[in-house]
Amino acid sequence: MKNLQVILAKRPVGVPTSDHFASREIPVADPEPGEVLIRVSHWSIDPAMRGWANDVPNYSPPVAIGDPMRSFGVGEVIASRHRDYQPGDIVHGLFGWQTHAMVSGDSIDRKVTETDLPQSYALGIMGLNGTTAYFGLRESCAARRGDTVVVSTAAGAVGSAVGQIARIMGCRTVGIAGGPEKVRQCLDEFGYDAAIDYKAEDVGAALDATCPDRVDCYFDNTCGPISDAVMARLAVGARITICGTAAITDWNPTPIGPRVHRQLLVARARMQGFLIFDYKDRMAEARDALAGWLREGKLTVREHFLDGPEAAMGAIEMLYKGENTGKLIVRV
Amino acid sequence: MKNLQVILAKRPVGVPTSDHFASREIPVADPEPGEVLIRVSHWSIDPAMRGWANDVPNYSPPVAIGDPMRSFGVGEVIASRHRDYQPGDIVHGLFGWQTHAMVSGDSIDRKVTETDLPQSYALGIMGLNGTTAYFGLRESCAARRGDTVVVSTAAGAVGSAVGQIARIMGCRTVGIAGGPEKVRQCLDEFGYDAAIDYKAEDVGAALDATCPDRVDCYFDNTCGPISDAVMARLAVGARITICGTAAITDWNPTPIGPRVHRQLLVARARMQGFLIFDYKDRMAEARDALAGWLREGKLTVREHFLDGPEAAMGAIEMLYKGENTGKLIVRV
Repeated sequence: MKNLQVILAKRPVGVPTSDHFASREIPVADPEPGEVLIRVSHWSIDPAMRGWANDVPNYSPPVAIGDPMRSFGVGEVIASRHRDYQPGDIVHGLFGWQTHAMVSGDSIDRKVTETDLPQSYALGIMGLNGTTAYFGLRESCAARRGDTVVVSTAAGAVGSAVGQIARIMGCRTVGIAGGPEKVRQCLDEFGYDAAIDYKAEDVGAALDATCPDRVDCYFDNTCGPISDAVMARLAVGARITICGTAAITDWNPTPIGPRVHRQLLVARARMQGFLIFDYKDRMAEARDALAGWLREGKLTVREHFLDGPEAAMGAIEMLYKGENTGKLIVRV
Repeated sequence: MKNLQVILAKRPVGVPTSDHFASREIPVADPEPGEVLIRVSHWSIDPAMRGWANDVPNYSPPVAIGDPMRSFGVGEVIASRHRDYQPGDIVHGLFGWQTHAMVSGDSIDRKVTETDLPQSYALGIMGLNGTTAYFGLRESCAARRGDTVVVSTAAGAVGSAVGQIARIMGCRTVGIAGGPEKVRQCLDEFGYDAAIDYKAEDVGAALDATCPDRVDCYFDNTCGPISDAVMARLAVGARITICGTAAITDWNPTPIGPRVHRQLLVARARMQGFLIFDYKDRMAEARDALAGWLREGKLTVREHFLDGPEAAMGAIEMLYKGENTGKLIVRV
């Protein structure tokens, strides 16, 4: 049995492209005590992977050159020497870009139990994207009924969940996305009250038109000029959650932009960085709520599948170019 | 009886100087029903007055040209047609730059009851400066025992109170101030564990040396390069309170600086604007604590008096140049 891996071959600066990866096959060993062998069926493509591939300060160390690219995955246990896992179990975790992951059972994120839902959902709406949206919006952004909630990358895997959860909570939702197709998705599929095409519209003027009472919550996945426009329109007591910085390709050196201090001061607003791993002890709460909404048909999920391991190499670049039309997943 | 006023004669851009003010005398009338006549003894000079004099978005409307400059003051009631106030009462409020203030009794901030303490304390440590330090540090910055707390304008009226309250709470305190005399005050009078002279030292290197475990709380009164250096050294879970922006003389247009988003994200840090008026219902709590610490000798207060109304005209500029050596007060 062979394990096909897609490894980080060169260190990127900024967004990694297919040039930075290579594939190789290595033999698959038998599990040692405590280990679990997983046949990985789907690899998740997430914005955080740019940071993992770059050698810059981050919340986790960079992927070493020659190692499989770090990524979340879902798959089936095919051999186990860990008492918590048996062959046939569906599991989710940081399995990396490889067809067969040999991992310590203790490092597995979780057993996927919502087997009535598509397995790939474990990577998105039932995984980091959905739980990020859930806690980011409800805890960090502290959204409340009646708030005006603005979301950037509004049609993305996280953003589309934020917008829909906010609507379920009774907020007024305004999505910012790039291009007419994503704006259509925001309005027709994700139920935003309004959507702004940042590629075609003056975002500031569009925010003035769609947020007459200014912005109570901003769920920020982009940084950059989109965020600058939102920050100039904060309501008193606004909360800004910094979840991602997709519009900035390089943080070394730190890019410059308008200082936010006066805006925060005048609005007594709060701007806060969010990382889902700080909520790891509360994931069941989010998954229960998300699965409930999915079963009731209140949450719409879009997935964009790429087929075959080789397709992973260009996937992060594709994500940063915004060319995907749903949660980006490699079907191994 | 005449009322000597110092009025805003011209609209400044940035820091108002003596050129922007003029004085005039007008007669003093008798109080109408509900009004109180106050002989004002001290005018407070505060950083917020720059914002009040400028015609830019702020949390209160700009002072009209020809009106007495808005300022806090303390004084004695000499005539009253409001049931809550009697001649002889000492009161604090927004009385403006005038020797005799005729105000609605309902607009008076409070009766000063801590008559064992110097009357001028009502403008500083027992007024907005002390209560700003108290709630800004304890609530907005959420300082906890053992935290490393960095304070800018560390020897100023707010900063020196922040540093001392943090020390009382069991925090490690690092002050940033300009010049050797203020650094001496930080160390010898205000009890900071370390102090950095931003005019003579590389602030980043000095922070590395004095904050080996990085910065848990940053009480920011300056914005600008000092804040940029602190923001690059946040501990995980750091809290930044934006209380003032003294280093930025003009916010129109918004000045640029390093984007803070990645720093907030990596540290899951919180940056929040603070305005003491949001705590108006809890002022007694802060004043009780502050008066207690003052009576126990745990809080040191420095006051810098200017004598006579004419001296007020250059006082805001003096404050922004950092030439005062304590809470700046005009002794009318």
